[in-house]
Amino acid sequence: MTNTEGADSKAKLEEFASDIVSDISAGKNPKFTATARTRSNITYDAKKGYLSLGNAKEERSFLNVAQSKRFMQTIAIAAKCHKFVEENLHTTIRGLYYQLKYSLGEDVDENIFNEQAESNPLIEDLEVSLNMRREDLNLNANRKGVLSGNVKIIDTFGNEKLEIDASKMGRSGWAIPSDVDNDIKFVDVKAKYVLVVEKDALWQRLNEDGFWRKENIILISPQGQAARGTRRLIRKLADMGLPVYVFNDGDAWGWYIYWTIKTGSMNLAYIGSDIATPEAKFIGVTMSDIEHYDFLKNMTMKASEVDLKRAQEMLAYPWINRHKEWVEELKKVLVTKKKLEQDTLQGPRLTFVDDYIRDKIKRGEFLP
Amino acid sequence: MTNTEGADSKAKLEEFASDIVSDISAGKNPKFTATARTRSNITYDAKKGYLSLGNAKEERSFLNVAQSKRFMQTIAIAAKCHKFVEENLHTTIRGLYYQLKYSLGEDVDENIFNEQAESNPLIEDLEVSLNMRREDLNLNANRKGVLSGNVKIIDTFGNEKLEIDASKMGRSGWAIPSDVDNDIKFVDVKAKYVLVVEKDALWQRLNEDGFWRKENIILISPQGQAARGTRRLIRKLADMGLPVYVFNDGDAWGWYIYWTIKTGSMNLAYIGSDIATPEAKFIGVTMSDIEHYDFLKNMTMKASEVDLKRAQEMLAYPWINRHKEWVEELKKVLVTKKKLEQDTLQGPRLTFVDDYIRDKIKRGEFLP
Repeated sequence: MTNTEGADSKAKLEEFASDIVSDISAGKNPKFTATARTRSNITYDAKKGYLSLGNAKEERSFLNVAQSKRFMQTIAIAAKCHKFVEENLHTTIRGLYYQLKYSLGEDVDENIFNEQAESNPLIEDLEVSLNMRREDLNLNANRKGVLSGNVKIIDTFGNEKLEIDASKMGRSGWAIPSDVDNDIKFVDVKAKYVLVVEKDALWQRLNEDGFWRKENIILISPQGQAARGTRRLIRKLADMGLPVYVFNDGDAWGWYIYWTIKTGSMNLAYIGSDIATPEAKFIGVTMSDIEHYDFLKNMTMKASEVDLKRAQEMLAYPWINRHKEWVEELKKVLVTKKKLEQDTLQGPRLTFVDDYIRDKIKRGEFLP
Repeated sequence: MTNTEGADSKAKLEEFASDIVSDISAGKNPKFTATARTRSNITYDAKKGYLSLGNAKEERSFLNVAQSKRFMQTIAIAAKCHKFVEENLHTTIRGLYYQLKYSLGEDVDENIFNEQAESNPLIEDLEVSLNMRREDLNLNANRKGVLSGNVKIIDTFGNEKLEIDASKMGRSGWAIPSDVDNDIKFVDVKAKYVLVVEKDALWQRLNEDGFWRKENIILISPQGQAARGTRRLIRKLADMGLPVYVFNDGDAWGWYIYWTIKTGSMNLAYIGSDIATPEAKFIGVTMSDIEHYDFLKNMTMKASEVDLKRAQEMLAYPWINRHKEWVEELKKVLVTKKKLEQDTLQGPRLTFVDDYIRDKIKRGEFLP
């Protein structure tokens, strides 16, 4: 998929509609196709390094009793998105749902949709079939994540072009939006690498130390699991040639966040190439860190049942067990039944975390 | 409590320590007192309009078998905070916990703390007994929330004074930090009022419309339940004379978020005066909105068990049932078993939400 702006979105939606109109005019059964998002069509390709969809297609046609309603619903969604793009206004899939609910008015007994769970998969149908992301259709997803460092953001706000300097955002950082493609640019990227820090607390620690300035890097926190916008931004920064290092807790949740950034996820396999960053490396914390930093011995926590179960599961994933370093790390957790949090690195002194990152990058000691 | 800067924090911590040293030198049992944070000492004062602590005090002394360990732990926490303030570095209560864990080193079998649940209440002890907030002790709390509008933020970052213009933050807004008091100022506040919007999605909608510019307001989203920093900032803006309107879902969660902003919460009653904004008004959405906006009739959702239970509970709170408007609203929910989301206001068209806010403010139609 490519970076599309409003004009492209409008054209693509109109092409989608005109194909259907042509079918109808020609007396044919109107239909469209979408790549299947079924589990069986999700593949991990070692060469690509991320989860994506295979070649299986699904057809949605109007003259099919099982599909007729869904077909009509998808057309209604496309029409709404076309309007949003024309108006140059954004909403969410929930806002879209209420517009559809409103459309038929109070006198019609049948709603287009009775609940949002019905409309969500159809939006994905549309994304896949148009080869666009919902952000390109003016639908914002949940946003989360923050950034500071040597990069400027050129954001378009109404008729204004704003220049936001991510090195001048102080304690707050720049809040990463849902859409980092349309009407927004990242310029003057002078950084050496991107450091992604799971916890906002650790991001704040490194930010306060001016770590991004001293090391000339871009410092990102997804603030937990990475939202679509943050994943997409990490991918874009990698496309600019920046190495990506991820610094997380050494536990089930930290590993999961890392692998989601690196290989994408089942749910979003349909936009895998846009949001996965297979080049990413795991900087820590790891159980092996104890060998270099003696004090960590005293800082471990008991691994929870969830951590152990997750470690076991991860050993079965082909995209993980192909890396012997990960197999070793996970086995260490399973044998010792211990884990480490990234916060432990504040133990000796608050700025120790800075040294740890520098040190590991210098030694080139990452998990793949 | 007053806005304290680093120098004050240091002085207060040193006074706290020197009192204890004096006790010891004089051969007395070292002790300090803290206002009791027990449920029975939490009061709602209708004149103040928020939850705060009563006059009951608790003494913590060293020569008391039940208190000796906690006393020692609190002193250790105070010493660490003193160091953080001196270094001019911040961490979280989790970072503090790991510093305490580290302190005794690997050769001592006994940790100062075995888990963080032990240290958290002692930090509150210290806040109460010093009459300071943890943010003044260089301990950051979780942050969440975003702001745009006609206000400038003067943030101190290392040796730099940064001026961040909240009217130039584009689609992202300015991320509200944990500490909005120390080394940070809010200047050029030219706004007419503050609008607090529960859901980030609706904040983004209004932000995109330039609603804050057109109406000359400050637009805040707590992004769900308001964090300490966001509550404190709302209080500070009210102190500058700005009216505060809250725009939430008309359900259990939306009501809870409103009342937490307005009257504070049980957990944070010890800093009630710093974070509660009794002047706040509830702009909507309400079940009464259906009378003015006919289309909303078709937009209601079934109230969940949680919503109904919460409505019932709220009717028993003296700070709620003193307002007949709230009693009426809650009874409407209980009778109809329906509720409304703020997203519904995007039904007729995306910008309808702007008109709704203007309209309700013009009519002065709020719940107290």
